[in-house]
Amino acid sequence: MTVSSAPGKVYLFGEHAVVYGEPAIPCAIQRRATVRVDPRSDGVTRVEAGDLTLDGFTVEYTQSVEDHPEIDVPEHLLSAATGYIDVALEQACNAVADPATGFDVAIESEIPLGAGLGSSAAVAVATIDAATRAMGTELPPERIAELAYRTEREVQDGQASRADTFCSTMGGAVRVEGDECRNIEAPELPFVIGFDGGAGETGELVAGVRKLRERFDFAAETIRAIGNLVRAGERAVERGDRRELGRLMNFNHGLLEALGVSSYTLDEMVWAARRAGADGAKLTGAGGGGCIVALGDGEQLLTALDATAVCVDAFQAELDRNGVRAEGA
Amino acid sequence: MTVSSAPGKVYLFGEHAVVYGEPAIPCAIQRRATVRVDPRSDGVTRVEAGDLTLDGFTVEYTQSVEDHPEIDVPEHLLSAATGYIDVALEQACNAVADPATGFDVAIESEIPLGAGLGSSAAVAVATIDAATRAMGTELPPERIAELAYRTEREVQDGQASRADTFCSTMGGAVRVEGDECRNIEAPELPFVIGFDGGAGETGELVAGVRKLRERFDFAAETIRAIGNLVRAGERAVERGDRRELGRLMNFNHGLLEALGVSSYTLDEMVWAARRAGADGAKLTGAGGGGCIVALGDGEQLLTALDATAVCVDAFQAELDRNGVRAEGA
Repeated sequence: MTVSSAPGKVYLFGEHAVVYGEPAIPCAIQRRATVRVDPRSDGVTRVEAGDLTLDGFTVEYTQSVEDHPEIDVPEHLLSAATGYIDVALEQACNAVADPATGFDVAIESEIPLGAGLGSSAAVAVATIDAATRAMGTELPPERIAELAYRTEREVQDGQASRADTFCSTMGGAVRVEGDECRNIEAPELPFVIGFDGGAGETGELVAGVRKLRERFDFAAETIRAIGNLVRAGERAVERGDRRELGRLMNFNHGLLEALGVSSYTLDEMVWAARRAGADGAKLTGAGGGGCIVALGDGEQLLTALDATAVCVDAFQAELDRNGVRAEGA
Repeated sequence: MTVSSAPGKVYLFGEHAVVYGEPAIPCAIQRRATVRVDPRSDGVTRVEAGDLTLDGFTVEYTQSVEDHPEIDVPEHLLSAATGYIDVALEQACNAVADPATGFDVAIESEIPLGAGLGSSAAVAVATIDAATRAMGTELPPERIAELAYRTEREVQDGQASRADTFCSTMGGAVRVEGDECRNIEAPELPFVIGFDGGAGETGELVAGVRKLRERFDFAAETIRAIGNLVRAGERAVERGDRRELGRLMNFNHGLLEALGVSSYTLDEMVWAARRAGADGAKLTGAGGGGCIVALGDGEQLLTALDATAVCVDAFQAELDRNGVRAEGA
């Protein structure tokens, strides 16, 4: 029995603009997906998952996720989760000398699924790490990040960012620009996350921004402004200037709002956090619904988020300096 | 007895950026300040005002607003209103051959005071028109706009935009860039306005944007993006493309939010209007509190705004093609 865990992430700055070559800064958070892998020799793969969303699910399958029995999890979330595991196991098998023919896989995740917190990347990273170790091969983190990226790319029909899988593998604060990812020095970053229980349609949201950018010079300017904001944000991270980071998060949120990717639930949570004393707050990820991230200590932000009509889950999640790691079985 | 009325305005696009030479498009709305003027020969000026805010007030004074008796209106609003009337009467007297030594002035206004709807400009414009006509001189509108601008500039310690007074004098949709104001062709524009009962501190808000612009290249870019958005907005106004106007209003609101001049009350009203089917919605004026303007027909928007916890007044106010005008006594 081999167990690995890998963290989720928030975007401190730069989502959406990163698609057009601007830099972005995702940060790993202390919320993890934990994957247990046992190789089998009978060609059967069995996946058991708890807490992938608010509910858990268990599914057994041999070849394809299409065979799974009826269970109480939205179809697209289930296919998504099992899809990532399937491909991640395949990548793991390709990376070892003596691959197994099947696996028992058990996933526990503290990261809400499809909420923009990088749950799929964390699952892919932890699965690859656990599966390769279970088959007797210790891969260097760069290789795990690469295989997890390929996993996301394959599952997401060629559309994936290296940032999520790199961030989950390496931990800490990451600077991504195009295909280049590297860790940057960061201070303690106490995040509070608010989740509205929903999820935007990432593809549609990205397409919406693309359309705006093609039609309007000022939309392209807005995207470039996000890029320059990220550059200022990078300096503020390295200086450890929390107030400045908060100010930039607020500004970034407005630019995302301009690009049409916020929602009333996200805005309500953002304002609740700001009014409760957050240094700053913004949506994180593709938007349209999902999560906001606020920078600030304490119970006050949680209480304020819980008091909104729209927040179904609020939790503290510090910057996590650890990436993927082996866990005691 | 001579009576004139002049309309308030909303910013369809471009507030704040207009301070830095970008174009903006204010629009006159069918909400008016009405001023009745009777010249006196005894050196006494008596001002009576109803509905300047939610309450009305009456004040009698000879030389200065400092002499006014205790009345049930916030001090700063009272000084503001009487200050504008005082200076407007002075401007009117300078513009006629045979000035009176005092006046009876009665103001009725449908425009909430200090809410960013141009109430002071409308009062100044209507006062100058009524007072000059009462003293036997019919001024051309350009001259009224100029005198009303000087009135605002004097009362506001040298800080005034020509846009508000020009828009109130001429009516319709106005394009302003620097000191140049001109009317542009516009379709029917059914606006719905939501008022949170508050008012931002215009000076502080403008100073806040200035500071951001001086510190951050991306803030300067955001302001330039607003300018380019206004140029696109101008074409959409001339084409009469309401859906496009709504889209641009939403985008403009996000850029203003990025510049830190929105508030949770304004955002809540903006989202209420959008969710009720508005083509678009944005804050109007300096922000920080005050009013939002939504583009859309019907009761639905009013109902949605009234249903929010933060809106104290919601009303329909079409684009007004008439500027200052004489009213039956």
